[in-house]
Amino acid sequence: MAMEAAPARTPERQAFYDEIEPKNLAPLWEKLHALVTAEPKTPCLPALWRYDAEVRPYLMKAGGLITAMEAQRRVLILENPGLKGQAQITHSLFAGLQLILPGEVAPAHRHTQSALRFIIEGHGAYTAVDGERTSMEPGDFVITPSWTWHDHGNETEEPMVWLDGLDIPIVRLFDASFAEPGNAEMQAVSRPEGDSVARYGNNLLPVDWRPEAKSSPVFNYPYARTREALTALARNGDPDPYHGHKLRYVNPASGEAAMPTIGTFIQLLPAGFETRSYRSTDGTVYVAVEGSGETRVGGTVLRWRPRDILVVPSWMPHAHKADTEAVLFSFSDRPVQEKLGLWREARGNA
Amino acid sequence: MAMEAAPARTPERQAFYDEIEPKNLAPLWEKLHALVTAEPKTPCLPALWRYDAEVRPYLMKAGGLITAMEAQRRVLILENPGLKGQAQITHSLFAGLQLILPGEVAPAHRHTQSALRFIIEGHGAYTAVDGERTSMEPGDFVITPSWTWHDHGNETEEPMVWLDGLDIPIVRLFDASFAEPGNAEMQAVSRPEGDSVARYGNNLLPVDWRPEAKSSPVFNYPYARTREALTALARNGDPDPYHGHKLRYVNPASGEAAMPTIGTFIQLLPAGFETRSYRSTDGTVYVAVEGSGETRVGGTVLRWRPRDILVVPSWMPHAHKADTEAVLFSFSDRPVQEKLGLWREARGNA
Amino acid sequence: MAMEAAPARTPERQAFYDEIEPKNLAPLWEKLHALVTAEPKTPCLPALWRYDAEVRPYLMKAGGLITAMEAQRRVLILENPGLKGQAQITHSLFAGLQLILPGEVAPAHRHTQSALRFIIEGHGAYTAVDGERTSMEPGDFVITPSWTWHDHGNETEEPMVWLDGLDIPIVRLFDASFAEPGNAEMQAVSRPEGDSVARYGNNLLPVDWRPEAKSSPVFNYPYARTREALTALARNGDPDPYHGHKLRYVNPASGEAAMPTIGTFIQLLPAGFETRSYRSTDGTVYVAVEGSGETRVGGTVLRWRPRDILVVPSWMPHAHKADTEAVLFSFSDRPVQEKLGLWREARGNA
Amino acid sequence: MAMEAAPARTPERQAFYDEIEPKNLAPLWEKLHALVTAEPKTPCLPALWRYDAEVRPYLMKAGGLITAMEAQRRVLILENPGLKGQAQITHSLFAGLQLILPGEVAPAHRHTQSALRFIIEGHGAYTAVDGERTSMEPGDFVITPSWTWHDHGNETEEPMVWLDGLDIPIVRLFDASFAEPGNAEMQAVSRPEGDSVARYGNNLLPVDWRPEAKSSPVFNYPYARTREALTALARNGDPDPYHGHKLRYVNPASGEAAMPTIGTFIQLLPAGFETRSYRSTDGTVYVAVEGSGETRVGGTVLRWRPRDILVVPSWMPHAHKADTEAVLFSFSDRPVQEKLGLWREARGNA
Repeated sequence: MAMEAAPARTPERQAFYDEIEPKNLAPLWEKLHALVTAEPKTPCLPALWRYDAEVRPYLMKAGGLITAMEAQRRVLILENPGLKGQAQITHSLFAGLQLILPGEVAPAHRHTQSALRFIIEGHGAYTAVDGERTSMEPGDFVITPSWTWHDHGNETEEPMVWLDGLDIPIVRLFDASFAEPGNAEMQAVSRPEGDSVARYGNNLLPVDWRPEAKSSPVFNYPYARTREALTALARNGDPDPYHGHKLRYVNPASGEAAMPTIGTFIQLLPAGFETRSYRSTDGTVYVAVEGSGETRVGGTVLRWRPRDILVVPSWMPHAHKADTEAVLFSFSDRPVQEKLGLWREARGNA
Repeated sequence: MAMEAAPARTPERQAFYDEIEPKNLAPLWEKLHALVTAEPKTPCLPALWRYDAEVRPYLMKAGGLITAMEAQRRVLILENPGLKGQAQITHSLFAGLQLILPGEVAPAHRHTQSALRFIIEGHGAYTAVDGERTSMEPGDFVITPSWTWHDHGNETEEPMVWLDGLDIPIVRLFDASFAEPGNAEMQAVSRPEGDSVARYGNNLLPVDWRPEAKSSPVFNYPYARTREALTALARNGDPDPYHGHKLRYVNPASGEAAMPTIGTFIQLLPAGFETRSYRSTDGTVYVAVEGSGETRVGGTVLRWRPRDILVVPSWMPHAHKADTEAVLFSFSDRPVQEKLGLWREARGNA
Repeated sequence: MAMEAAPARTPERQAFYDEIEPKNLAPLWEKLHALVTAEPKTPCLPALWRYDAEVRPYLMKAGGLITAMEAQRRVLILENPGLKGQAQITHSLFAGLQLILPGEVAPAHRHTQSALRFIIEGHGAYTAVDGERTSMEPGDFVITPSWTWHDHGNETEEPMVWLDGLDIPIVRLFDASFAEPGNAEMQAVSRPEGDSVARYGNNLLPVDWRPEAKSSPVFNYPYARTREALTALARNGDPDPYHGHKLRYVNPASGEAAMPTIGTFIQLLPAGFETRSYRSTDGTVYVAVEGSGETRVGGTVLRWRPRDILVVPSWMPHAHKADTEAVLFSFSDRPVQEKLGLWREARGNA
Repeated sequence: MAMEAAPARTPERQAFYDEIEPKNLAPLWEKLHALVTAEPKTPCLPALWRYDAEVRPYLMKAGGLITAMEAQRRVLILENPGLKGQAQITHSLFAGLQLILPGEVAPAHRHTQSALRFIIEGHGAYTAVDGERTSMEPGDFVITPSWTWHDHGNETEEPMVWLDGLDIPIVRLFDASFAEPGNAEMQAVSRPEGDSVARYGNNLLPVDWRPEAKSSPVFNYPYARTREALTALARNGDPDPYHGHKLRYVNPASGEAAMPTIGTFIQLLPAGFETRSYRSTDGTVYVAVEGSGETRVGGTVLRWRPRDILVVPSWMPHAHKADTEAVLFSFSDRPVQEKLGLWREARGNA
């Protein structure tokens, strides 16, 4: 299309560009093709992080180099190879793996950025959100919504690792970052564990409660319950050809995503099942929770097993194939794109 | 706060960072202070473009160097001096000045990016949106929502200039750009001029019409009507100490902003009126429509007269002072920030 | 269908019914066919009130029998002939004609019930709503939303008559009526006339204003502007076969109806135009604003001329035919039915 | 207030009223005080139905007088003593007790009216909704939303009784009743039992699912889970002085009530707890699920034990007192009143 190429750069034009540059002016026609592309042209690349072989050893090594307290958050950023140095796993999202060793605390703070935790290994360390602790198990999906106080602690005998997903690049684009450290390392516990789920998580809500924020009042979506739902779905019907059995986590007070900036999903692929080619404009981070298989993205084949993490960039056709029954957790910026009228998907080779 | 400084970089740590870099891993604790700041730290700077003295001459010169057809859109980008080379006036928005000379056409295309036009000079050239033309006068606010066909033409005897505001950086962050050229330079006219206003613009809507998009079905908000509203407000009551008499343009089908990604505003400042210091997280582009005055942003004083354009970055305290009765048009990403729960404001020196 | 007939009433059963009646128990199977019908079975009948010949003389006579002050509201109720004594024009709505003579005041009060006024005759008497007066002209549509203070006054030389439409039966069903008299006959004027339209009526809203109620902040929709929109629509395109050129009045802060309980509509029928048969579940009150014609409802033909009022019951097939170019205003409970998921329509003889 | 009394009825006025009556006209001033009251004046009375002593015997007797098939629905209506013959328990709602004997079927049909079932006695009979069966236990709350196919069957060895709550008077006011019998007595089962809960009931929703209706996709809210939530709430905090521990059932796809016309609630009152006086405009039906106690409504004391049903009319001050730990289920038209801006409450003696 016409927009795909810039007009010729004659000497007169170049002289003009040089003349206006100090005036904070620039010719759009030189850049239009790069700014308004016929299809998404993301700098992100497909990538895979092998947890056991390649990531966990480094994480444990980091555990010996710095404490959670000194690091504030001892996290290894998963950097997209197309965005080196930029702390992004997709163009709009941050991902990292956080380690808390026995006896450690990641001190209380709060910030504008919304964060998700998806538990990778360990049993029973806690995250506290606005005065309530939740203990975490592999596969649990935990949120610390925008501007909520949160700290993490490990009072167990083993290391605890989870995937952090944050909307840091989104908040940066809008120049809207605020943060505050807590008064104490650990916030005071003001509600018993499980209170939020009891109050908000059973298709019931407190009679006079009205949401003050756009995030879910439920902050732990335990894997036990999620897995049960997947099992029932797989028993009750056929998988969708593009997604297998796929659910999205919701804020039960609105039916929207658990947080306004990040959508999260869980899907079961039956043993041997292969999805058809699919693409959408939300670059997506996947965690293999159970099973093994492979994901083809463009010409790349990413072979995964439990706890591996992979990323599929925006608009790249991809398909999953499960060797055994597999469960994939994923997250993306889809809720933002939907609110802004930007989200698109295409099924098959269309 | 603790987040504001990185832990010491010992040789062991540096060696570790070097070791993990090829694995697409990086230490968050080295970057946390830059990623999650206590307050917005925007690279944008306050800036002013003096239309008559500094911009218009270059625009006219551009008119002699390239045709609207060859340029596709003959636009001089207003680049924020803190973001040189990046085609951004704020971190999240694009602005430029577009010139169409008598007899020219800017050919039909459509794209994901939403665009606003605020008319600076000229009388009667048209923008066509999805088959309906609207002729433009200074002060008119015209939208070409996401994925609508649009072309511009000047069948008058004088040059036509307007300010373009687009959400290019937002669409780029989400890797969601799509674009298509039209089949012909000018799209066919399928509805008479004024049809949209008649159908949607009078606090009435067609009985069976349901919006298909998030943008306003009204695409020209004429200045004559807007000015009348401002005049009535100024006559009927006192100005707000922070804003004067300020209105936001709305989509009458929802009460939301005219487009989901860009909010637009118009405000009247009485002669001699000075607003109190105010700041908000949406970096804002202003156009002086009528009158003269100055805007203090941080330590900078920007003096403006009609048709000048200025930008106030996110979270910088600022105040306007009008020498004569003045009208300012402005736009920002506020509707996005509100949808995502990010928007904040502070009045006074708080 | 089975539900349409009750089971046989044997002596044993009758004895049982008699036995349980004092216990506040009753057999559903005796009533199910009447309670849950296969299609709407309304007690309402089609009816017409001829303004000049039949209603106006009585209204003027009422003007001599009681003052506006003594009556509080000097209104002749338009009672549906199928609902005599029940002050209903449809099953869910009240309609009446209100007369204010020169020099009279209908004193200030407020109540839960929402009211619309559609001006029938007279020029320049006012309605005041929450401190702002609006002067009224024939064809203007004025609202006094739930719990807003309102009074009416006629400082002109001629009688003023308007149609009142209220949701009295709806508020009664929900046992939710509250009312209060004002402290004075006329409320103090706190805002100049026209302030609401300037503030809310031009596809602009005050920047920090958030609606506190579900009703429109615009409370006069002047006929001049509405008529202009209709004229443009009629010039620009073909009429809808079922509705002619039909618009609904909207709350510009939400795109919803002007009041949550009553929907209002205006439609233009070209000279000689005949709509196709249509029905919907919202029984509808029409006012002929301009032109003459007839409306067939079931087997009844209602011939109307300007200022006549007619009612079409729920789900009765009907069609309009205009002798000359005609304009019909109408109102119904459609917004309530839509909110509750009850509204249905059928086009043609389906 | 002035609205509370009608003007004097002089002979001239009476003659006028008689003259206009045949013209379907009536004087509003004669009725205004009754139509627009200062506070709700409901015809409903407080009432109690003692299940074991007074209702169950009649229900079983009805079981011998008519079959579920012949009755279509073998239901004893709970008629408000202030609304005899009108099949209403409050002004806007219907309630009845439905009996299905072993081996019986209540045949499939669908209708506009929304229905709730609250299970009173029996174990394991089923309700089928749009192709999915759910087996019912005491305390379960089951919905059959508007226009969904539903049938009931009892394949157990004991009678099954539940409370039916329907919006029949609401649908009647709006003249919007539609109904259809099924083709067969029992609808075909198209989804396994539990599928809806798995798909929609765990703070997860199918990724591509969009609600087509305003009702909850979850149609059984089992008591086991609800009771667990109540137990946790009672353990974790103090009861609200007006409500004890009170939750509302929600549609997890929207956070709204499970059905658009009927709100449902469950509350736990600790042993010995007495609520403070409270009133609201939604007349409410209560079922005592566990425990015993009393409810004072105006001057009436209603003493209840498990399975008793009571009704509190609109705006009557009332208070509950629990002898033992008690659980009350309740339903009302509150969601409709909230949508229409009509709902009010008052705490204490205000």
